[in-house]
Amino acid sequence: MRIDINCDMGESFGVYHLGNDAALLAFVTSANIACGFHAGDPQVMEASVRLAIQAGVRVGAHPGYPDLQGFGRRNMELAPAEVEALVLYQVAALAGFARAAGVELQHVKPHGALYNQAAGDPALAEAVARAVWRFSHEVVLVGLAGSALVAAGQAAGLPTWAEGFPEREYNPDGSLRSRKLPGAVVHDPARAAENAWRLATAGIAFTRAGESYNLPLDTLCIHGDSPNALAVAQAVRARLDHETG
Amino acid sequence: MRIDINCDMGESFGVYHLGNDAALLAFVTSANIACGFHAGDPQVMEASVRLAIQAGVRVGAHPGYPDLQGFGRRNMELAPAEVEALVLYQVAALAGFARAAGVELQHVKPHGALYNQAAGDPALAEAVARAVWRFSHEVVLVGLAGSALVAAGQAAGLPTWAEGFPEREYNPDGSLRSRKLPGAVVHDPARAAENAWRLATAGIAFTRAGESYNLPLDTLCIHGDSPNALAVAQAVRARLDHETG
Amino acid sequence: MRIDINCDMGESFGVYHLGNDAALLAFVTSANIACGFHAGDPQVMEASVRLAIQAGVRVGAHPGYPDLQGFGRRNMELAPAEVEALVLYQVAALAGFARAAGVELQHVKPHGALYNQAAGDPALAEAVARAVWRFSHEVVLVGLAGSALVAAGQAAGLPTWAEGFPEREYNPDGSLRSRKLPGAVVHDPARAAENAWRLATAGIAFTRAGESYNLPLDTLCIHGDSPNALAVAQAVRARLDHETG
Amino acid sequence: MRIDINCDMGESFGVYHLGNDAALLAFVTSANIACGFHAGDPQVMEASVRLAIQAGVRVGAHPGYPDLQGFGRRNMELAPAEVEALVLYQVAALAGFARAAGVELQHVKPHGALYNQAAGDPALAEAVARAVWRFSHEVVLVGLAGSALVAAGQAAGLPTWAEGFPEREYNPDGSLRSRKLPGAVVHDPARAAENAWRLATAGIAFTRAGESYNLPLDTLCIHGDSPNALAVAQAVRARLDHETG
Repeated sequence: MRIDINCDMGESFGVYHLGNDAALLAFVTSANIACGFHAGDPQVMEASVRLAIQAGVRVGAHPGYPDLQGFGRRNMELAPAEVEALVLYQVAALAGFARAAGVELQHVKPHGALYNQAAGDPALAEAVARAVWRFSHEVVLVGLAGSALVAAGQAAGLPTWAEGFPEREYNPDGSLRSRKLPGAVVHDPARAAENAWRLATAGIAFTRAGESYNLPLDTLCIHGDSPNALAVAQAVRARLDHETG
Repeated sequence: MRIDINCDMGESFGVYHLGNDAALLAFVTSANIACGFHAGDPQVMEASVRLAIQAGVRVGAHPGYPDLQGFGRRNMELAPAEVEALVLYQVAALAGFARAAGVELQHVKPHGALYNQAAGDPALAEAVARAVWRFSHEVVLVGLAGSALVAAGQAAGLPTWAEGFPEREYNPDGSLRSRKLPGAVVHDPARAAENAWRLATAGIAFTRAGESYNLPLDTLCIHGDSPNALAVAQAVRARLDHETG
Repeated sequence: MRIDINCDMGESFGVYHLGNDAALLAFVTSANIACGFHAGDPQVMEASVRLAIQAGVRVGAHPGYPDLQGFGRRNMELAPAEVEALVLYQVAALAGFARAAGVELQHVKPHGALYNQAAGDPALAEAVARAVWRFSHEVVLVGLAGSALVAAGQAAGLPTWAEGFPEREYNPDGSLRSRKLPGAVVHDPARAAENAWRLATAGIAFTRAGESYNLPLDTLCIHGDSPNALAVAQAVRARLDHETG
Repeated sequence: MRIDINCDMGESFGVYHLGNDAALLAFVTSANIACGFHAGDPQVMEASVRLAIQAGVRVGAHPGYPDLQGFGRRNMELAPAEVEALVLYQVAALAGFARAAGVELQHVKPHGALYNQAAGDPALAEAVARAVWRFSHEVVLVGLAGSALVAAGQAAGLPTWAEGFPEREYNPDGSLRSRKLPGAVVHDPARAAENAWRLATAGIAFTRAGESYNLPLDTLCIHGDSPNALAVAQAVRARLDHETG
């Protein structure tokens, strides 16, 4: 078993510092770098790309809604054509820093509300997939396992990764429990590590429209924005390394 | 004699419409497309690239300061590293739309205050040139003839174009007369056409630090934002075609 | 019969000009001035307040979502506390220009998606009403006739105005037909004038949850953003003046 | 001797947290609250006003340039009319939160580059003073001692406060040493406390255009953004209380 571990990074902005990117990079294999719409700015993007490369972590774009104040976590109703254009814009901008630093973009993973809305809305998912495909047919589109986003990526002919969240609670239909609800985020490192192991080996099981699903996963997401993010990251990575080492 | 004619375009934003891009494209050979910082948004950029390609006009990026309200025309004091990052960001974003439409970026021309400040400030000019060079060694950097920007592009090993402005008055030192001053913009089509002919054939002459210069030009800029922009564009193009046809 | 006529204004931004405010002011009695979030900027707000006062038109605030690119017309999911704060912010800012010009704010009318979402969402409507009430207990809250927004204003103890739209088609439940659908906007001046007369004299009738309503109206909205806006405004005003003169 | 002590606060934005407002409030008598342009957002403004009132600290507006990414510290060249409008906008918005919480605005202190540029540029200083005066003739305008801003406030008929900076080094002409230069900020609590005592008792002495000045001060500024900000604040306050207690 070999599973990718990804984390969001580059979510600082101007004088505002967020996250613990340098430390988190020790535990992941792919980094989703914010592109200046929900977080990040050109200098932060440039520094984040360099940091990831130095750590031997592969670089991806993490496009979001144009909502810095809401950190891209507030649902917005954008037309598919709007979403397609803003994803292509952000992906190309981040890829510019990657290429200038000598690497190609490995993947694209939408952020926050865009990720969640595209998981359930085929038209939105197609817009995201089309934007990525227009940028490159070889970039991996990362989406929630079993979501419309992964389906749209496959339909577009893109490589896709099904993602799991060891630090998040799931709804019975395979969607993520909303961050607005209590208990949505798992803060206990041991429990997150156990979730990671289960997701990496057994995949994700859920029931939708009366049908049962059990899907393998390609990548697991760990977060940097909870107080004990590093402890969780370390526990998850150690658990996976132990079993696969 | 063959001289390029360029114009700014794609400066609409959201519901706000600016300029007369479709009509202006009939008279130019290169288009400088705004990249979302001083004007433009992802959908406008996408549409502008398509429009230029349809008209057989070559596509360039027109990066500016992050100042939508001031249309990028207000001087800002940014550190060179800030400018380098924001130019690379904007160039890569615009190039993403160009590539998705099947063409490569021909050139980069900074906008407004960034153009003017980089003309006179070698550190800023180097930051712009470095950003372009990091994106591609083959993209043309367009700057005011005789400016620090052209010099920085040459020093960086980039192809450069020296630009002239048939619709603008010059100061004796070869800089552009400020738009804040009366008479800075030439509105008379016949006079603009005559300027264009003179600039295309004789280049630009000026005196700086006691030395006289007479520089040939590679491209002439015409504007789309004055009331009789089309009449001016038509007159300039006709004058140049007549003599070169 | 005396009915107020209101229009949106001050929706230009920076170099971007929108609307025909000066001409439209001849036909209305109340102006809803954008506050810098969905449109407008401090200088536009200042000029718009002056223009309204010179025309003898009463001044109101027109707060919207923080979405300049979408002109505040894209639905967003904001928490009520977020909406309350951003409405109070915008209302106070606009009132600052009003007071500096010697008048008090007459009314507040939310813009676009905020107006529509608050019409149907009691929690959002209460947030808007609370913001207005905290600013002043005497400012009129303007909302769609029969909407949650008017109800929230009344519950908060604010004066409220029920609004009708002679230029817009209604759904059977009294909500406005979405602008995304064909035929949502009435462009024919004669038909708009007839609608205005009917709305002013007979109010608005609709059926909701099996109950029939027939509500009187306090103000009619005319728009400035359609090509023949002035013809429509003139026809509406003439029709109302004729009958009431 | 009684001297006011002020600090900047409310400089968080969205998910981004900055400063240590609650702790700092224990040491100051006036708070300069950011207004959403260089930092702050409507919810942060609302919470900051409440926090200041709870601590018995008087509330002021801290307007800045529209430059969130640069935290309002990058010089911009705005026309005086632009500055006047954006100051009035921000002051009125902040005052809206103050009034809703039951207090009137005590003062206005421009932020960062606006403060520094207005200190040396009479036209800019007049624009700021005019904006404040149009909002209220009784609000105190706070400016660098001996600066054009204080002079403009006095000329406008506003109450003014001359400000000193125990944590900053001065140039011989009474201006502040640029933050870009090493040693501009005093990090040693004991030295800052000694500076505070000297400034509070002896005022500020400097030489400009061949003339010597020695000006009394009305308020001292302490900062919240250095690592040992609280230690410095505590030392400054203790030193002043000891001598005046």
